[in-house]
Amino acid sequence: MLIVQKFGGSSVANAERVYNVAKRVAETYKKGNDVIVVLSAQGDTTDDLIAKAKEISKNPSKREMDMLLSTGEQQSVALMAMALTELGYPCVSLNAYQVGMMTTSAYGNARLKKIKPDRIRRELDRKNIVLVTGFQGMNRFDDITTLGRGGSDTTAVAIAAALHADQCEIYTDVEGVYTADPRIVKEARKLNEITYNEMLELASLGARVLHNRSVELAKKYNVEMVVRSSLTQAEGTVVKEVCKVERMLISGVAGDDEIARVSLIGIEDTPGKAFDIFATLAKKNINVDIILQSIGRDNTKDISFTVQDTALEEVKAVIEENKERWNLKKADYNENLAKVSVVGAGMVANAGVASKMFEAMYDSHINIHMISTSEIKISVLIDKKEMHKAMNAIHDKFNIID
Amino acid sequence: MLIVQKFGGSSVANAERVYNVAKRVAETYKKGNDVIVVLSAQGDTTDDLIAKAKEISKNPSKREMDMLLSTGEQQSVALMAMALTELGYPCVSLNAYQVGMMTTSAYGNARLKKIKPDRIRRELDRKNIVLVTGFQGMNRFDDITTLGRGGSDTTAVAIAAALHADQCEIYTDVEGVYTADPRIVKEARKLNEITYNEMLELASLGARVLHNRSVELAKKYNVEMVVRSSLTQAEGTVVKEVCKVERMLISGVAGDDEIARVSLIGIEDTPGKAFDIFATLAKKNINVDIILQSIGRDNTKDISFTVQDTALEEVKAVIEENKERWNLKKADYNENLAKVSVVGAGMVANAGVASKMFEAMYDSHINIHMISTSEIKISVLIDKKEMHKAMNAIHDKFNIID
Repeated sequence: MLIVQKFGGSSVANAERVYNVAKRVAETYKKGNDVIVVLSAQGDTTDDLIAKAKEISKNPSKREMDMLLSTGEQQSVALMAMALTELGYPCVSLNAYQVGMMTTSAYGNARLKKIKPDRIRRELDRKNIVLVTGFQGMNRFDDITTLGRGGSDTTAVAIAAALHADQCEIYTDVEGVYTADPRIVKEARKLNEITYNEMLELASLGARVLHNRSVELAKKYNVEMVVRSSLTQAEGTVVKEVCKVERMLISGVAGDDEIARVSLIGIEDTPGKAFDIFATLAKKNINVDIILQSIGRDNTKDISFTVQDTALEEVKAVIEENKERWNLKKADYNENLAKVSVVGAGMVANAGVASKMFEAMYDSHINIHMISTSEIKISVLIDKKEMHKAMNAIHDKFNIID
Repeated sequence: MLIVQKFGGSSVANAERVYNVAKRVAETYKKGNDVIVVLSAQGDTTDDLIAKAKEISKNPSKREMDMLLSTGEQQSVALMAMALTELGYPCVSLNAYQVGMMTTSAYGNARLKKIKPDRIRRELDRKNIVLVTGFQGMNRFDDITTLGRGGSDTTAVAIAAALHADQCEIYTDVEGVYTADPRIVKEARKLNEITYNEMLELASLGARVLHNRSVELAKKYNVEMVVRSSLTQAEGTVVKEVCKVERMLISGVAGDDEIARVSLIGIEDTPGKAFDIFATLAKKNINVDIILQSIGRDNTKDISFTVQDTALEEVKAVIEENKERWNLKKADYNENLAKVSVVGAGMVANAGVASKMFEAMYDSHINIHMISTSEIKISVLIDKKEMHKAMNAIHDKFNIID
């Protein structure tokens, strides 16, 4: 079997942990598998490098930031190679250039375009364990790019897809995907399997086990992902296209309390206005989540939307800049909000899910500010301080079992 | 003019120093010059990375070591680019792959083979200040190599040669090349100019201003080097092919107290024996300096040679391994030695230099263990504790003035 294994920064934070991972990798290799390992930068390396950059410039060039940050993963793979060599296993470390990890040019948030798998194949043929830098790529100018949040997961899936790996294992500090965050919902249980679509909804809803770009890519190329712990031998959660037919309604509850809501009040009700607003935000790479539009008074309308709270300052700047052009009466901001969502492929065929969720909120006296639904999920926006209560109430109400 | 400027690790050790260098570079650029800047890794970065590697493996793979260490310079150039951008100057950082810095495959001690100057030229045409990682290259397998000690100086000269730069400025923490180390010889004076050959002898004799590989390269491609301080505006020392005709006899005195002597006693006096010994050492990349051979008793001979004291352990291992094959009676080691040398192109035509030097030693009651001479230098091996005294005595005797 060809197996891709991805380990995050905390799994390789120091020499001892590097050896733990090396032994884990060696076990897989000893069973006769071809193994490709994707690594993130060690522990706080990336944060330390960002701090160094911020000492020099408040707003450093994104190209140079990628040049700087990409060194972290390169250090990880080199150190891991030393550990595996010390344990007696043949191996080689490769960076983005060496594996031909081609991306778009959007520094800091590049998208993978293509992998030239020749070098990896050659090293596998030589029976080497191949260690690859996660999170980074090269654009068509031969410049270094990084993939943004969750980039190493994406690297792992992309390599698994390009080399037709049998499995892509994402190692993390939890044993798999849970029906809810176990730190918040005590009754949360580990799922044995979950579909790509459910995982996508959970990932984008604040269950931070997998980043959704990696799941999207896995779905597109039908790469079977396994989320499992680097600390235990537990089986983990398999993420794949179709799960067993007998399923409960809901596979999980997710909460995200890093949400900010923006309300634009009194926008002129002419065609193209909303498009203009969201196109302007998109150009600044600001991701808008829930959007709600209501008719206001005097031939105007109100538009509310949510963004990650880290993006709020930038949103405010954009709005300030375009206030006059948009004929905006008022803009209102609220950072004290959380989004709680239920996800489940079974939801499509069942009308009662939404009402059951609202009932859980009502029972717990939780006020709902906004509602958003898709085929397999329902999200509500509530006050941040009530997020934990809401997640527990929903988990109880649906009595989620795998 | 096209000017290459190289700054060492201590010049870019922190944000403040990065800005100092950035301003210095900007000054040169503002005068209308094209500027290429070669940087070493920040301060202790390389040592810290080596320490990390040693935690993992006592004898880490050299290929992986280069993969690891090369990240240091990449961080330097990225941070410098951020500083220059902040000051308002257009710039771009490039690593060894991006500048096509092709080397041999000898990891940890690679030799430059070729530079593909296209990318640098393109960036200069765009009026960018080009920041290049020193010390590193790529071999024909697309793997990262490093150039060994003094590698960044070599990078700077190689780029200056490949791009036909008008000058290659090596910035350091002293104002230039001195007639002796000013910390040891109070009367030492800065030289305004020095020939490549003199500089080569001084460099290889322990005057650690420039590494001799960079001077060799500068000589080969006739690159005019300038050694100057990054802290003052002083003119520095120009290193070039021919200096002004009126010269004093001696351009400098150098001392090196990191010398170990190895004596192999009672070697069978058959042809090829010495060749075998030194070929074996060369294969292990051990640099032998002074060699002295004397006839011993009973058809045997003694061979003494000096090496850098850091290489002594490896030498001992090699000798232990080959003892029987070489029919060696005894090996003797002495680490308490220093080498003191006088260098000067004027020496060739003047017979009195050697005797004047020995006179200085005699006056100061310093015992000479070994003597070695070349066309432009004379070296003596003495007890380590007498090095400072010897250097002062020689400097006085020759009354060295530029």
